[in-house]
Amino acid sequence: MSRDPRYDILFEPVQIGPVTAKNRFYQVPHCNGMGRSYPSSMAEMRRIKAEGGWAVVTTEEVEIHPSGDHSPWMGGRLWEDCDIPVLARMCDAVHQHGALAGCELNHAGVMAANRYSRDVPLAPSHSPVAMPDPVQARAMDLSDIQDLRRWHRQAAVRAREAGFDIIYVYAGHQLSTISHFLSPYRNRRTDHYGGSLENRARLLREVLEDTRDAVGDTCAIALRFSVDELMGADGMTSDGEGRDLVEMLAEVPDLWDVNISGWENDSATSRFKASGYQEDYIRWVKGVTTKPVVGVGRYTSPDAMAALVKDGVLDFIGAARPSIADPFLPKKVQEGRIEDIRECIGCNICVSGDNSFVPIRCTQNPTMGEEWRKGWHPEHIAPAHEQESVLIIGAGPSGLEAARALGQRGYRVTLAERSKDLGGRLITERKLPGLAEWGRVVDYRIWQVSQMPNVEVFLDSEMSAATVQEFGAQHVVLATGASWTRDGVGRENPRGIPVDAKAQVLTPDDVLTGNRPKGPVVIFDDDHFYMGGLLAELLAGDGIDVTLVTPAARVSEWTENTLEQHRIQARLMQLGVRLILSHNLTSIDPNIATVRCGYSGKTTTLNARSVLLVTMRTPHEDLFHDLILSDGVRATRIGDCLAPGTIAAAVYSGHRCARELGETDLPNVPFRRELPALASFDMDWTQNGS
Amino acid sequence: MSRDPRYDILFEPVQIGPVTAKNRFYQVPHCNGMGRSYPSSMAEMRRIKAEGGWAVVTTEEVEIHPSGDHSPWMGGRLWEDCDIPVLARMCDAVHQHGALAGCELNHAGVMAANRYSRDVPLAPSHSPVAMPDPVQARAMDLSDIQDLRRWHRQAAVRAREAGFDIIYVYAGHQLSTISHFLSPYRNRRTDHYGGSLENRARLLREVLEDTRDAVGDTCAIALRFSVDELMGADGMTSDGEGRDLVEMLAEVPDLWDVNISGWENDSATSRFKASGYQEDYIRWVKGVTTKPVVGVGRYTSPDAMAALVKDGVLDFIGAARPSIADPFLPKKVQEGRIEDIRECIGCNICVSGDNSFVPIRCTQNPTMGEEWRKGWHPEHIAPAHEQESVLIIGAGPSGLEAARALGQRGYRVTLAERSKDLGGRLITERKLPGLAEWGRVVDYRIWQVSQMPNVEVFLDSEMSAATVQEFGAQHVVLATGASWTRDGVGRENPRGIPVDAKAQVLTPDDVLTGNRPKGPVVIFDDDHFYMGGLLAELLAGDGIDVTLVTPAARVSEWTENTLEQHRIQARLMQLGVRLILSHNLTSIDPNIATVRCGYSGKTTTLNARSVLLVTMRTPHEDLFHDLILSDGVRATRIGDCLAPGTIAAAVYSGHRCARELGETDLPNVPFRRELPALASFDMDWTQNGS
Repeated sequence: MSRDPRYDILFEPVQIGPVTAKNRFYQVPHCNGMGRSYPSSMAEMRRIKAEGGWAVVTTEEVEIHPSGDHSPWMGGRLWEDCDIPVLARMCDAVHQHGALAGCELNHAGVMAANRYSRDVPLAPSHSPVAMPDPVQARAMDLSDIQDLRRWHRQAAVRAREAGFDIIYVYAGHQLSTISHFLSPYRNRRTDHYGGSLENRARLLREVLEDTRDAVGDTCAIALRFSVDELMGADGMTSDGEGRDLVEMLAEVPDLWDVNISGWENDSATSRFKASGYQEDYIRWVKGVTTKPVVGVGRYTSPDAMAALVKDGVLDFIGAARPSIADPFLPKKVQEGRIEDIRECIGCNICVSGDNSFVPIRCTQNPTMGEEWRKGWHPEHIAPAHEQESVLIIGAGPSGLEAARALGQRGYRVTLAERSKDLGGRLITERKLPGLAEWGRVVDYRIWQVSQMPNVEVFLDSEMSAATVQEFGAQHVVLATGASWTRDGVGRENPRGIPVDAKAQVLTPDDVLTGNRPKGPVVIFDDDHFYMGGLLAELLAGDGIDVTLVTPAARVSEWTENTLEQHRIQARLMQLGVRLILSHNLTSIDPNIATVRCGYSGKTTTLNARSVLLVTMRTPHEDLFHDLILSDGVRATRIGDCLAPGTIAAAVYSGHRCARELGETDLPNVPFRRELPALASFDMDWTQNGS
Repeated sequence: MSRDPRYDILFEPVQIGPVTAKNRFYQVPHCNGMGRSYPSSMAEMRRIKAEGGWAVVTTEEVEIHPSGDHSPWMGGRLWEDCDIPVLARMCDAVHQHGALAGCELNHAGVMAANRYSRDVPLAPSHSPVAMPDPVQARAMDLSDIQDLRRWHRQAAVRAREAGFDIIYVYAGHQLSTISHFLSPYRNRRTDHYGGSLENRARLLREVLEDTRDAVGDTCAIALRFSVDELMGADGMTSDGEGRDLVEMLAEVPDLWDVNISGWENDSATSRFKASGYQEDYIRWVKGVTTKPVVGVGRYTSPDAMAALVKDGVLDFIGAARPSIADPFLPKKVQEGRIEDIRECIGCNICVSGDNSFVPIRCTQNPTMGEEWRKGWHPEHIAPAHEQESVLIIGAGPSGLEAARALGQRGYRVTLAERSKDLGGRLITERKLPGLAEWGRVVDYRIWQVSQMPNVEVFLDSEMSAATVQEFGAQHVVLATGASWTRDGVGRENPRGIPVDAKAQVLTPDDVLTGNRPKGPVVIFDDDHFYMGGLLAELLAGDGIDVTLVTPAARVSEWTENTLEQHRIQARLMQLGVRLILSHNLTSIDPNIATVRCGYSGKTTTLNARSVLLVTMRTPHEDLFHDLILSDGVRATRIGDCLAPGTIAAAVYSGHRCARELGETDLPNVPFRRELPALASFDMDWTQNGS
């Protein structure tokens, strides 16, 4: 196929200072939980994006000095020359495909507690660090400012040596010392670095000039800046100082990378914001600078992208999450394969990796983070050794992904689904408020398998051990899913919760399939991801009286990792949901739920016509056991049928099964690692006076 | 000096299966936040303990397989042979000093979410993992049990190859799959691995036998077991199944390492438990086994230790925290230098390192975690090049440590304190409920400097720029501390809080120096460590009506890292303190405090005769600035005067100053690192079908 001419505009080259990007697809900086600790994993992940057609591929935040030490977050590091090879590997990989490599240098100031380096954090004014660590940053004096400028300059030189084409000055998201100086609320200085915007922007201007002076002859200088903090008059606004700053420095950088702050606003999930949610804040930027502008907004549609360029809103389509879900998005547009784009669903599972200090993963793209470690390419997969037959039972996220990937390998795949629809848990979950985009996980896969002549799909096909045997496939894969349990067993109650037989107890499955409990409803959330909070939102939205009880101190606590927790709890409060936090549910009687405070042990009874338990799920494994009993067939379980988890885990499980089918003798550790290089170890204590 | 004969019993050798410990000092397994990620730092920290006289030095938890992957916690790893060299380095280091090396093998089951490996967690029965990750473990079938036994056996063989003398089977703290099988509440199996204690202990017995079979001819087999879970009838008790288990397996291991569960009980802080708090739970163990027994209880007194052995309670004095605070404790007892012991204060700052995924630190021992990275030995320090004079102003934790360490180096030190007492912030803080042991930080240092002829201490000596100049020391060090601020500036309110001039506003310093506010008091805790909660406890204990307001969702939230949060919040509730969580304090008027919900934005007014602000501290830096103005002298600031932080940070700061005095040209990164060894990077994608 060939490119639709409507998208030609996206493939125009664009000059950025002394370098030229081959097209308008620009992977903006994004964390990945690998960085300095998993160097080849990080480099290969970036290389794949370059291979997939992105004209610019940038790093995550790269620390310039131990006094801005983000540990345990796994970013990049250019503290010393010995840090260069890790990033040089990334640059070499990216350059293989004619892409430009960008480096987001950063000194994190009060956003870094220096947990590893144990240095004193630095800030424009004395203040505690942002995280709850019992550590204060000290106000920088003029010599500290000189130091910071020197560190940034040295790091820029190291970045050029590593091979970067674009060097960032980072003034975004309140994540950098430079942004703290800019801030009207963090900067309380009375010298010429504080007060007026001109003064607060002095450090930024100086660092921009330093960077240009150091590397600007061969490298482009990018400025990443958040034009609005969504705090109204308390912070920067795009019609106030945010705009003033862009006007003030309009022609100073070679490129403007603009967005909104904080991170939870810049990377808002699809549950809360639709694609394009940043446009209103940044559409004026191109009007006040002649330099190219990149912006983001979770764009996955080439039509929307082309319109942004045509309308003069952006020069580059910036992407972090869409480039994670589909590293080959540009190439697919170029080749006219729009239907093959694996669109980001905006779930922020990617962010959760970084936020829990481990490598990135993605719901849509099971190869994300596995490119080097497991050798998984997002578009290619080894062909089947023999074109054997595979029977997959269950067409949810894992079954569909297994069918798709095994189909791609050339197996003869039969996908049998007992219900009348494909999609598994997503058939109902995508209808929950805000989760519509999640349906893309199955839509993409349903389309892909529909195009494969070697994959056959059967609906309304309940399978038993006997029919499986009768079918006679060479491989059997069970993707039969899981159901929410009704006994209360879970984290807080490993023995379950006493339930009176006359009490009305519901599970999420009941509600998802249309059962609406009579209020007042008590929801017990011992799960802590989206389900408990979302069902509270759904029922309260229907006008039902809802109380949410959870042993956690916050609603949907784990969604802190997807940047959603604050929004979820705020929304529930707005809807009038009663919240009983840090409490366990200890028994359920007719019309009464008894809860106990996790701290005081005090019990309270709640009026509860129905109790909705969001505790755990039990895998559908009857068929698995029947198969073992009937003829000793050991089928492979995947997804929730193997172990209930996230949709990301289910897709990964289906993909892994497809990769490993026919492999024997998998090693104990089925992936590669890069261990610390042991230093020589010959301490001479006499030098210390022993 | 020579050893007090009363302590001879502590230096008797003790046989453990096929190996012999040279004395009774036994460093039990403890986390350190270094493990596999900072190998030489970990090895050198362990070596120093062996040098300091511990007869047995063990690892932290060492993972045996990717399905028990504790990431991002930094433990040890023996997944594959390539993991052996890291631990071999530790063994070699420990053996240098005639100590035995022990390895705590572990498969963490539901305590590990496998965030890095992405394997499915394993458990006796289907259940969510313990952390809030949206991940469930699957019930192990018999082949999974065979796998786990094989992994443990393979890891034991690897541990022996690394050089370990003692191999652990870990059934403690509900942190291992073996303990989950043992658990009456986690194990819901109906096969011969579930039900009776005999059945639940089957896996433990099998793994013990496997381990003996694999390595028992040359290595001792230790069993670490928590005899009581402090859950009453809901869990294991030392007069119930805890005891039954020990009786059942009495002679199976070569050593019993016994304690109580969970971790927060085993490692209780001095704020909540006095030394020896485990004795009542474990004193019967030696009565039911002939094998040697090691137990813990934050013992730092050799008298208490000798009594435990004489009374037949323990064969080995186990220690984690006391060996961290003073790695040379055994040697000091042996050499009759009891007064030189740096006693653990039971603050759990050590634990906070591991819990925030970075290397261990210690309040008492500033060299902890720095042994290899900075070459800091806890007992030795380089002598001064010249015996120059140093004037240190301020005798709090940092000033005292600087005086002690500079005195040890041979400098002529003058320590000038403006008040009538030594100790700085600890003069008052040690009097807070539960913090008495914290006073050891200054007591130890006051004693040490009192023994140094080259350190002179002056009380009641307020210094000005003029008197400093007049004094004419070659180096000036300012350790003048910090004060809590009264303007509300802090994390939540970087611009401060509007305060009516007629309102009564207090700071912790006011209360610490005896000022008792009139109730009702509103305490605003924007600090999140111990101070806010502790002042609430103090005032409520005095019968004052107290409301604690905090933007965090939990009281004293950061103390989660010191394992104290639950106890603190429970105690405040018991004392009747009103808790207003997730709220900011937005203004203070006479008798009124206005607070705002962090989620809904709704404001509420509270009746507040006094408002106590626990927000931030401001350094006492007037003298520093005066010195610069008067004659351009640039003094060195340390401790809270440089940047207010923990007492651990202050001691570290004083120590660092002493180490670095006279050093010029410190590098950008003043410590050594071990970076990941870059793998070869020549992916051949054709194998994947591209």
